Amino acid sequence: MKSTYLLSNKTAKRLYLKAKNLPIIDYHCHISPKEIFEDKPYTDIGKIWLSEDHYKWRLMRTAGIDEEYITGSAPYKEKFIKYCSAIEFAAGNPLYHWSHMELSRFFGIETTITEANAEKIWDEANAYIAKTKMSPRKLIESSNVEVLCTTDDLTDDLSWHKKIAEDKTFAKKVLPSFRADNLLLVRRNNYLEYIDTLRAVSGVTIASLADLKEAISKRLDFFCSMGCRCADIGMPLFPNRIANDEEGDSIFKNLLAGESITDDQYSGFVGNIYLFLGKLYKEKDLISQWHISVVRNPNSIFFEKLGGDLGFDCVGNPINGNDIIMMLDAINRNSGVPKTVIYSLNEANIAQLASIAGSFPNVKCGAAWWFCDHKRGIEDEIRVISEYGCLGEFYGMLTDSRCLLSYARHDYFRRILCNIIGEWVEKGEFSPLSAEKLISKICYENIKNAI
Amino acid sequence: MKSTYLLSNKTAKRLYLKAKNLPIIDYHCHISPKEIFEDKPYTDIGKIWLSEDHYKWRLMRTAGIDEEYITGSAPYKEKFIKYCSAIEFAAGNPLYHWSHMELSRFFGIETTITEANAEKIWDEANAYIAKTKMSPRKLIESSNVEVLCTTDDLTDDLSWHKKIAEDKTFAKKVLPSFRADNLLLVRRNNYLEYIDTLRAVSGVTIASLADLKEAISKRLDFFCSMGCRCADIGMPLFPNRIANDEEGDSIFKNLLAGESITDDQYSGFVGNIYLFLGKLYKEKDLISQWHISVVRNPNSIFFEKLGGDLGFDCVGNPINGNDIIMMLDAINRNSGVPKTVIYSLNEANIAQLASIAGSFPNVKCGAAWWFCDHKRGIEDEIRVISEYGCLGEFYGMLTDSRCLLSYARHDYFRRILCNIIGEWVEKGEFSPLSAEKLISKICYENIKNAI
Amino acid sequence: MKSTYLLSNKTAKRLYLKAKNLPIIDYHCHISPKEIFEDKPYTDIGKIWLSEDHYKWRLMRTAGIDEEYITGSAPYKEKFIKYCSAIEFAAGNPLYHWSHMELSRFFGIETTITEANAEKIWDEANAYIAKTKMSPRKLIESSNVEVLCTTDDLTDDLSWHKKIAEDKTFAKKVLPSFRADNLLLVRRNNYLEYIDTLRAVSGVTIASLADLKEAISKRLDFFCSMGCRCADIGMPLFPNRIANDEEGDSIFKNLLAGESITDDQYSGFVGNIYLFLGKLYKEKDLISQWHISVVRNPNSIFFEKLGGDLGFDCVGNPINGNDIIMMLDAINRNSGVPKTVIYSLNEANIAQLASIAGSFPNVKCGAAWWFCDHKRGIEDEIRVISEYGCLGEFYGMLTDSRCLLSYARHDYFRRILCNIIGEWVEKGEFSPLSAEKLISKICYENIKNAI
Repeated sequence: MKSTYLLSNKTAKRLYLKAKNLPIIDYHCHISPKEIFEDKPYTDIGKIWLSEDHYKWRLMRTAGIDEEYITGSAPYKEKFIKYCSAIEFAAGNPLYHWSHMELSRFFGIETTITEANAEKIWDEANAYIAKTKMSPRKLIESSNVEVLCTTDDLTDDLSWHKKIAEDKTFAKKVLPSFRADNLLLVRRNNYLEYIDTLRAVSGVTIASLADLKEAISKRLDFFCSMGCRCADIGMPLFPNRIANDEEGDSIFKNLLAGESITDDQYSGFVGNIYLFLGKLYKEKDLISQWHISVVRNPNSIFFEKLGGDLGFDCVGNPINGNDIIMMLDAINRNSGVPKTVIYSLNEANIAQLASIAGSFPNVKCGAAWWFCDHKRGIEDEIRVISEYGCLGEFYGMLTDSRCLLSYARHDYFRRILCNIIGEWVEKGEFSPLSAEKLISKICYENIKNAI
Repeated sequence: MKSTYLLSNKTAKRLYLKAKNLPIIDYHCHISPKEIFEDKPYTDIGKIWLSEDHYKWRLMRTAGIDEEYITGSAPYKEKFIKYCSAIEFAAGNPLYHWSHMELSRFFGIETTITEANAEKIWDEANAYIAKTKMSPRKLIESSNVEVLCTTDDLTDDLSWHKKIAEDKTFAKKVLPSFRADNLLLVRRNNYLEYIDTLRAVSGVTIASLADLKEAISKRLDFFCSMGCRCADIGMPLFPNRIANDEEGDSIFKNLLAGESITDDQYSGFVGNIYLFLGKLYKEKDLISQWHISVVRNPNSIFFEKLGGDLGFDCVGNPINGNDIIMMLDAINRNSGVPKTVIYSLNEANIAQLASIAGSFPNVKCGAAWWFCDHKRGIEDEIRVISEYGCLGEFYGMLTDSRCLLSYARHDYFRRILCNIIGEWVEKGEFSPLSAEKLISKICYENIKNAI
Repeated sequence: MKSTYLLSNKTAKRLYLKAKNLPIIDYHCHISPKEIFEDKPYTDIGKIWLSEDHYKWRLMRTAGIDEEYITGSAPYKEKFIKYCSAIEFAAGNPLYHWSHMELSRFFGIETTITEANAEKIWDEANAYIAKTKMSPRKLIESSNVEVLCTTDDLTDDLSWHKKIAEDKTFAKKVLPSFRADNLLLVRRNNYLEYIDTLRAVSGVTIASLADLKEAISKRLDFFCSMGCRCADIGMPLFPNRIANDEEGDSIFKNLLAGESITDDQYSGFVGNIYLFLGKLYKEKDLISQWHISVVRNPNSIFFEKLGGDLGFDCVGNPINGNDIIMMLDAINRNSGVPKTVIYSLNEANIAQLASIAGSFPNVKCGAAWWFCDHKRGIEDEIRVISEYGCLGEFYGMLTDSRCLLSYARHDYFRRILCNIIGEWVEKGEFSPLSAEKLISKICYENIKNAI
């Protein structure tokens, strides 16, 4: 990887020298706190790359590789070779960029990934892992991560977070985030078991909507006592109305009785809880994150066979802008809008969302998410935020990843950002005087101040 | 501002030398004819920039500035300094470009806008205003505006237009445009008062749909007698059906009786009037403009406190293409489609709209509107019109602005246009022989011939 | 036409030297097999360009040219001159590019198309046609077409394909494709006549859904016996549900009885047939093509006067992603998904479609279609396929054209593709080692292996 990778102009190269050394505040990821606490040394690159990364699994499928080498029982070395064969012709895919960046950054390998080079890379990478005793904490430290916000179900006991906080040998902050999806996915088969768990961990007897809210509130108190600064929802449904408490109570009692509810009731119930969560988050001054326009498990055969989160999810329809407005306005009237970051998986409505965000205080568009997290997607997101909002207020990058190697994506983002700003400066469209400060705000200061 | 601002190639620079001297025909703006007639000298740049410009207010809000400095009672100097602080990091925002262009063009100031430079700019700009006795008419003249079409409610008495036309000291054409929004926003609280006004100014007793149409028709006759060449609608609703006259009459009578109407009746009534207006505009050979996909006043707290048009509006959902087709086809069958220009606030459907426009005679896509009026938005609009239609027929730029300094945006548009055409010429994708003529058609001739 | 047209970097120029000589497999076009068999020499460029090409007709309309010179009775020379006048200012339109490419490639003419040059071009082109005895087969041969898949109604007797196959003097493969639109457009006036034709050609008495399916199945057997490798549907409706066979049978019997059916029944019936066709295509290992988001005949006046396919069609709304998912998942459960290529006419949902494609085996996004088939559209499609899928698996270009000169569009596509890949290579974002092979896969090998 050349040090000027993705940096096509002189100003960009200069700005990047500043950007690359800024600490990382990863305000949304899916890294396992257990993995961080235990800090087990890694063994081979096949496992690191291919044991959990649904991005890579998906790419392998689109390249026509047999499931045996993806989620199947083939040995990691074979899987790794197959992955290299898929990458070879995946020009323009972010995994092409990321995989080479990760090899260079974390394994000191500059070889191009091709099927022919796969074995060589396998050997060199594994030798490097062994030699450096590569482990989770070492990756966090070498990536200059200052704060790392995991994603945790609100019933989680946060025991691993506690252990990490108590471990004096590790100075980085690993904070829990309050994830409410399971609370709202009321049509799952095991929803009542989930409520039982919530009862158990909150100590609240949950027989009504008011009880449910008391339990949620207690859990949030607990999360905040453990350093929680962020909340998140990423469910497919976005509510189109808000049931009042009386109706919400009645719907929830139906759910508790194991009865089915209508789509309209579902939406109204979720809307009621959104409003309630908005108030809680505002009180706690959390950063509330909405991940919208996602479809989960569209391929029912694979879902039944293998389960979820395996790289089959896809982009959902654009969410109706009027629903977003309705919800933001209602929260604003009810409690004031907490700091809110909206991420859409559907490129087609980021401009509309950016404009809606600008109509409410504290609401911003987030970094390009998941399928949008590629070079052009990041560029587009930066441009849209610039055009429809104020780039200087952007919270910048997060990984949203399960894998610690993904901190290379912060580097990816920073290079792309520096390149755009550099281009603007060189064209006389932005002042060289403010450019360095702007980079610093987006890459570090804004989120540092908000979190 | 360098003379080559936004012009990245040699051909573009050559084309711009031609483009910059073409007169401006501003076929849609919101400038006050009273301001033009009275021609009161300006006093300070704070007031010019920040007393009415909701674009700037919005940017300040997205930059986290307190409302006190936006629509509040802070002194203009303080507001100006806050605005400069917001601009400093608003890289890529069109206001960054426009504000610097305006400073350079109208105030002779080349200083970069930053918080630190704000006082200096304030002093220099105000000295310049005083020295040059800057006034509305001077701005119009120095901007080489030939025709300026204001936006006027159809009940307006156009007294200021009359005075301007009678003033022999001012040679520019200031023409009224026929705006029908208030007629169609039938759910406003004061709708019946509006109908009363219409009765009064038209002299028609309005008790039926036929009466209403007679009154509208008389108003349009009056507007045309005053030089009106353009009509405009910019309401959030786009009708999905057309009530026939019998149903339309019944709905209108409900409205007159102060009764509420259903959504379906609302749409049908608006559809009926659209059809009628289409016929009128065709007869008068007006340019009919549709501004679609806008949401007004999404933030209800601010709307209740401060009112509308304050920078809270946002981008609406893409309008259903079938509705646009239904309406254009119905107008075509009823009377032939008048010259029609469609502007969408939602980027995601400009390509579809451009394709629909190409299916009907006289229908075109307009310049990038409002939130879309930024460098990339203008480039995208030019590209889509090229790809889906015929660029040589494009009517080019309009300001849509309340502020006379916005004529800098014509310069913005012309630079961007010349840059694209220049790029195509240098790549061998367009003929240098036709380029200058093309620029001239888009910047001046097409709209000159149409208006 | 410079040999480096559209090739802006050195690597692109190198890659193109390889790409330009690859054979063409045109897996979807609308060329007449009769025209190929008869091989009548052409007479004049006016007729070649303007007798059937609705792309050109549409452009002429958007340029304001009278219908007399488009579909009217004006002599071809006058039509040709009018077309040149439209092209002169159609900067950025693909027809500007294509027309110049065709002149250069097939007529040896390098003159810029302008109104002033029209007569000169007319004379030179016609002299060239006469001198070279230009004919359909000569165009196919000089374009290096290896396989050409026409589009044929499933009731077609394929007699021209038979004659071509039997003609030993012509070695190129001209294969029929199975087009099911007429079967599914059940609300046409002459639908029952169509079913009568299907009865006649299949030999099946069609009185039930089961009979219908037997007839379809027999037709497909016949098509496959004639070398059919592709199937296609391009109707405006995309079904939102799948009627079961019992309901489907009842709906079909309503149709046979000449009764009208509801929208919901229409959708359910089409869904039922889609499921059935999916199974058939899977069994035959065909490439199933879906062309979605099109509106046919939006301008009813012209449709009533002149008929369809005249350049009035336009881009439809984005298809609901959930419907696409529902249908793919159902086909997957029922039979496995056949090789499927989805083309959307609406740019706004290609990213979503690319993500959905990646959730199912064998599903890909196709090349930029119709209104999207322009330089930026092709670039966008290549980028989206790269970002959301695996570029190395892309089937590449097809003409979708009625005109043999359109093989210039393969050259257009290859130049654009080489330019993008070249750019990536030169920026260090893709390996020079794999670039040539990637080009070869996309331009030839992938579709060669699939067909």
